[in-house]
Amino acid sequence: MATDLNEDFMRRAIALATENVRSNTGGPFGAVIVKDGDIVGEGVNTVTATNDVTAHAEVNAIRAACRNLGTFDLSGCELYTSCEPCPMCWAASYWAHIRTIYHGNRAEDAERIDFADYFLYQQLAKPRSQRIIPEHELLREEAWESFQAWADSINKIEY
Amino acid sequence: MATDLNEDFMRRAIALATENVRSNTGGPFGAVIVKDGDIVGEGVNTVTATNDVTAHAEVNAIRAACRNLGTFDLSGCELYTSCEPCPMCWAASYWAHIRTIYHGNRAEDAERIDFADYFLYQQLAKPRSQRIIPEHELLREEAWESFQAWADSINKIEY
Repeated sequence: MATDLNEDFMRRAIALATENVRSNTGGPFGAVIVKDGDIVGEGVNTVTATNDVTAHAEVNAIRAACRNLGTFDLSGCELYTSCEPCPMCWAASYWAHIRTIYHGNRAEDAERIDFADYFLYQQLAKPRSQRIIPEHELLREEAWESFQAWADSINKIEY
Repeated sequence: MATDLNEDFMRRAIALATENVRSNTGGPFGAVIVKDGDIVGEGVNTVTATNDVTAHAEVNAIRAACRNLGTFDLSGCELYTSCEPCPMCWAASYWAHIRTIYHGNRAEDAERIDFADYFLYQQLAKPRSQRIIPEHELLREEAWESFQAWADSINKIEY
């Protein structure tokens, strides 16, 4: 449930998003990662400013939190994002073990300003053969060798 | 359709994946980005080695290709990945305008060695209220202000 503190973190994410547009450094998206009531990472969309198409606000905030905390495991952290995460950012949140997501705008709202977030959710609900990027399987048996090497490895670091 | 050249690129992705396990630098995943028959970016999973939970092989390869080509737009590029992209990496491929994806292992194969890729596709096919990460909406009307600023911006760089 929303508390005043929740709203403070969301307002910070929204302020980051709006400032990012004003300073012309990227899309209208901001995000903060919170742990135990403190901000441990922030991010804005820097796709165009840094020539990194993966540099969405949430990905940048997650990367910042990983750097700041010195870990790839953000268990116990919450994500506040000015817009519902796109599937890239939702999956990144899952891999990071984010506990709770708070969003401002919905993916459907982003669609109104011509962003594909909502379209992407529709795409990922389809079987791979029906998605918009053609996808082909190649050398599946040879590829298993990498997985077998992982299964056999005795000193691997799981994540 | 697969040609010998396609197979060469896939074998490179698989070799990267297997070497990554052998050198204990991350998970059993490798990827290459190809443009006009040349490799323009490569990546392996470096989640644990770099404390970056977003550092999947495909994301790293896409970031490398963006850096090498000096652009956030990988139109005309193909992705060869030793395993079907997880939804994070599939969506990253979409945002990058990747033309075609070739995968070795399937997400279902990754599940056999305890990776969540297939589970993530199942999650993203559900409505947000039914996904495993609790998600709450907060200050949606205030958040629209960032989008309105974007809509009103006359010098924005679209992507």
